[in-house]
Amino acid sequence: MVTKTLARNIVNFPLEDLPSETLHEAKRSFINWLGASLGAHDHPSVKMGLNVAKILGSAPQATLLGTPIKIDMQFAALLNGMSSHIFDFDDTFLDTVLHPSAPVFPALLAWCEYHELAGKLFLQNFVIGVEVEQRIAQAICPSHYQRGWHVTGTAGTFGATAALGKLLDLPEEKMVYALGLASTQSTGLREMFGTMTKPFHPGKAAANGLLAALLAREGFTSSVQSLEARRGYLNVLSEAPCPAILEAPWGQEWQLMKNTYKPFACGIVTHPAIDAAIRLRQQGITASDIHEVTLEVHPLVLELTGKLEPRDHLQAKFSVYHCTAIALMDGTAGEWQFADGKVLDEEVINLRRRIKAVPHSELAEDQVILRAKLTKGDTVTIFVEHALGSLANPLKDKDLEEKFRSLTAPYLSRPRQEELISLIWQLDSLPSLRRIIELCQKDLHEGVQ
Amino acid sequence: MVTKTLARNIVNFPLEDLPSETLHEAKRSFINWLGASLGAHDHPSVKMGLNVAKILGSAPQATLLGTPIKIDMQFAALLNGMSSHIFDFDDTFLDTVLHPSAPVFPALLAWCEYHELAGKLFLQNFVIGVEVEQRIAQAICPSHYQRGWHVTGTAGTFGATAALGKLLDLPEEKMVYALGLASTQSTGLREMFGTMTKPFHPGKAAANGLLAALLAREGFTSSVQSLEARRGYLNVLSEAPCPAILEAPWGQEWQLMKNTYKPFACGIVTHPAIDAAIRLRQQGITASDIHEVTLEVHPLVLELTGKLEPRDHLQAKFSVYHCTAIALMDGTAGEWQFADGKVLDEEVINLRRRIKAVPHSELAEDQVILRAKLTKGDTVTIFVEHALGSLANPLKDKDLEEKFRSLTAPYLSRPRQEELISLIWQLDSLPSLRRIIELCQKDLHEGVQ
Repeated sequence: MVTKTLARNIVNFPLEDLPSETLHEAKRSFINWLGASLGAHDHPSVKMGLNVAKILGSAPQATLLGTPIKIDMQFAALLNGMSSHIFDFDDTFLDTVLHPSAPVFPALLAWCEYHELAGKLFLQNFVIGVEVEQRIAQAICPSHYQRGWHVTGTAGTFGATAALGKLLDLPEEKMVYALGLASTQSTGLREMFGTMTKPFHPGKAAANGLLAALLAREGFTSSVQSLEARRGYLNVLSEAPCPAILEAPWGQEWQLMKNTYKPFACGIVTHPAIDAAIRLRQQGITASDIHEVTLEVHPLVLELTGKLEPRDHLQAKFSVYHCTAIALMDGTAGEWQFADGKVLDEEVINLRRRIKAVPHSELAEDQVILRAKLTKGDTVTIFVEHALGSLANPLKDKDLEEKFRSLTAPYLSRPRQEELISLIWQLDSLPSLRRIIELCQKDLHEGVQ
Repeated sequence: MVTKTLARNIVNFPLEDLPSETLHEAKRSFINWLGASLGAHDHPSVKMGLNVAKILGSAPQATLLGTPIKIDMQFAALLNGMSSHIFDFDDTFLDTVLHPSAPVFPALLAWCEYHELAGKLFLQNFVIGVEVEQRIAQAICPSHYQRGWHVTGTAGTFGATAALGKLLDLPEEKMVYALGLASTQSTGLREMFGTMTKPFHPGKAAANGLLAALLAREGFTSSVQSLEARRGYLNVLSEAPCPAILEAPWGQEWQLMKNTYKPFACGIVTHPAIDAAIRLRQQGITASDIHEVTLEVHPLVLELTGKLEPRDHLQAKFSVYHCTAIALMDGTAGEWQFADGKVLDEEVINLRRRIKAVPHSELAEDQVILRAKLTKGDTVTIFVEHALGSLANPLKDKDLEEKFRSLTAPYLSRPRQEELISLIWQLDSLPSLRRIIELCQKDLHEGVQ
């Protein structure tokens, strides 16, 4: 009865019972997500997707963020979901490595924009979508991820489906079918990391979730036990599924409250190393002082970001060596630190090659030990207990605002940024998302500010 | 190098080198596929899909078969792929249980119709698509299917991608990326069997394949080793992958030549039992003569079609008991034998309950032993060595024509059927598919003929 219980919990939960802190956290997620999406909105892959939308005669329904261009809701979900994950700068559940916003917000945004729905509904249903996708992720991870699935694409499909299904007020039976349609469209392989197809995954999850909810609303049938059946989603997609989390009651705690936001424009697993490098730099140590750096890292770091010689900005994000090198040189690791020019810079390459990393199985994922052997002969050791951006050391609202400003600086003027930030904090009282979406259109040429 | 080798083989093979018998087999596949699609074109699930297309503002590009309605190419691929699999009456590779036409034809048809391409290109690229999807299926099966994947949805995505990619003349590098985009969108769980979502799978495969090929044409990147990587498609989707088949050279034999076509409107695994029941009836034995029937069947029969008490037409197709009962009563097992009325008919239920089935591990999938214990006391035994429609006992061209007439009889007048059949056999010399698609619009009201 796992699928039915989950569907019933989604359907029966009264949105007005959501605690106000969940709505505030949804706003924090949104400002973070929107900045990431706007920052990457003119990435070549988004333009490629837009070209395909045009070839398919896509109807003008919902906005491609950052532009005045409208495309149909499904393509808007796909492309806005994609852009928000391109910089690897979106939010993360640290236990599952799920990026919860990227599959859910774009599906909701497309529907809410086109139907002029209120900001509160947008936020509330986001909380629901995140609850479902993260429970699914917990039910199938870690073996799911270990096998090679990109959980943001796979579990994310359920997030988009549940959020839209709840927004569309699906009755229990149809919610069951919607979850079935989500389970059979679950998409994304980790092998795609470092290519345009990684951010494609949450976009496709958003688009597939929209389709699942809309088909279910029409009466389209699927299995009534898609999750728990012998050959259902949990058993096929996981080596050791934990269905109990899917049946656990709702409303005692909310998954969204465990969301974390990245201070740095790359995979969360590299953040402790970046944090350590910034602390090293704060001690006045520069690249030329360094003979060799040895990082002791959680084993996942090397598995995910062990690329020794990245050749472009995407690969650099999967190189803990590059991340550490540029943090030591620049004191930060924003999107600009991953530009192709930086990646191929002689000085960066030179420092990168002096950085080693070894797995240390007793470290937590937000910890690192950095040992810098200096040219002068002495060694400096830095232990990061909780990296900036981790649950124990989260970004504050002001930090999120600053991250938004930084990401959108090439496109949006300061007044426009400030109006957007202010509207996002009032999102639960806005009658529609229209003004926010209008303000996202760039009023600066790239690189002007 | 598996992915690159496969991409190179697709790209480099000169279409004009395809032997003429492959084009004839492609026509056989098409007449069979088109009949199945037209027969089910007004199924409620297709209408639900069409409603969703309308909600998304789908552009008029390609025809929803059987109607004058045009929708965008991606939705046409989805819905025509879906309709062709609803009756479970399409073609099958017996070794992988892949239904090759359902994911490939609708993607090609949508593109070729909108761009007014010649019939020969349509047929040639179908052969290519089938070659790729069946090799993928062979590389991941049987463990892939056993785990719970619906291979027609999963491997089918590669068929649509390869066919479109070849039609679009993608160079090798882009074909590699297209295969990556296919691998990460591979979709479909067997748990959905018996619901509207089963036929949704090949439709989604067709739509996803179209998207993969179009994105790759724009320059969208994915992994260059999506199939063979440690966490690539083969290892994630199979417990025991066989990559060699994907690297084997092209042109010595063609997978399509092993395609089979169903004489009966249900899963291929039930065909031996139906064939046996028809042979029993040909001996003059009727339902009232039967005390009990025992079927000895290949183990997969009970696993896939063991439903004892089907409640509607979809479930009945997954009940070898129903299949055998109606074949014995009606002497055939066309779509009409699975109508809800038949499924709930007292006499049918009564006979169904007198049929038992036991697995027999030494039987081939196209074999059955039927033992009928008669009310008079004696027992009749029938052994089917190769069921009608199997590779060793295939449907002839004339049989395929007759199947097409039967499936389309509620919608198309006889002259229209005959013109269609004649055009399909000339497909390689037609300048476009337009006339065929026009003729598919019904000129009879349902049930008139």
